[in-house]
Amino acid sequence: MTAVLIREAKEGDCGNILRLIRELAEYLKLSDQVKISEEALRADGFGENPFYHCLVAEILPASGEPQGPCVVGYGLYYFIYSTWKGRNIYLEDIYVKAEYRGQGIGSKIIKKVAEVALDKGCSHFRLAVLDWNRRTVELFRALGAQDLTEAEGWHYFQFEGEAMRELAGK
Amino acid sequence: MTAVLIREAKEGDCGNILRLIRELAEYLKLSDQVKISEEALRADGFGENPFYHCLVAEILPASGEPQGPCVVGYGLYYFIYSTWKGRNIYLEDIYVKAEYRGQGIGSKIIKKVAEVALDKGCSHFRLAVLDWNRRTVELFRALGAQDLTEAEGWHYFQFEGEAMRELAGK
Repeated sequence: MTAVLIREAKEGDCGNILRLIRELAEYLKLSDQVKISEEALRADGFGENPFYHCLVAEILPASGEPQGPCVVGYGLYYFIYSTWKGRNIYLEDIYVKAEYRGQGIGSKIIKKVAEVALDKGCSHFRLAVLDWNRRTVELFRALGAQDLTEAEGWHYFQFEGEAMRELAGK
Repeated sequence: MTAVLIREAKEGDCGNILRLIRELAEYLKLSDQVKISEEALRADGFGENPFYHCLVAEILPASGEPQGPCVVGYGLYYFIYSTWKGRNIYLEDIYVKAEYRGQGIGSKIIKKVAEVALDKGCSHFRLAVLDWNRRTVELFRALGAQDLTEAEGWHYFQFEGEAMRELAGK
């Protein structure tokens, strides 16, 4: 059994996190959308008022093994605000490398997010999943999440690029 | 034609904003979910690191009319973070009182959000709509928004209450 540590990311993890962000986008078949850089991740997550927080899953080597600890997953979240229930958490990304799946690492990350949410007085936390990503959908359901798109009919809308500039009159 | 001003909310607007939040929840048939208080809105939106920002739509009285300006709509947003594109905006609520609809006030709020997003270097902004709320869905589409749930299959999931506490082991 591999020993896994879920810990808060440090600035020095940003290179590993970016590699995992790219792997996740590839897995979601949306690689072309990744524009972020390691520098932006460092600046945005580790300044005075960070735009996001991140957990990493680290595999600890057995004693006597030559390699150091290895980051194999991450969960990136930030605080959002509900006009009904106040402050809560949005889990933007959660990802575990393919060769480390099925060991409960994703669940460990989710559990840690639930702990943070409770500690910060949040009544809930949210995330979005692609409906064809059955493995992840089933994991979230098994852990007790409710599909609000299915249950209440919430759809995500996005304004971007030309549409946004036109709206802004620029 | 009524003169409408879209401006940033001040702390003194929180009473009006709360009334509109309740009206919106009623309109969405989800009134029982509103737990927020005026005090929480004041503390959370107007401290040193506000959890949200808010625009209000104010009707200006014609000169000579006895009543003062009147808040008839709001748009409440905050900054979120995309691991693909960096910082962007989430428009949590947008609402215009029934008797003031059809005058383009909702579009004016959306346009102002687009301006803020561009000014802050965001590549896009997002919001969620209930699929049966056709009037709003059509407005957003007409303004150029894309339905990401339909186009890409994104579903909203939520962990709350007992499920969240169990996850956190508390």
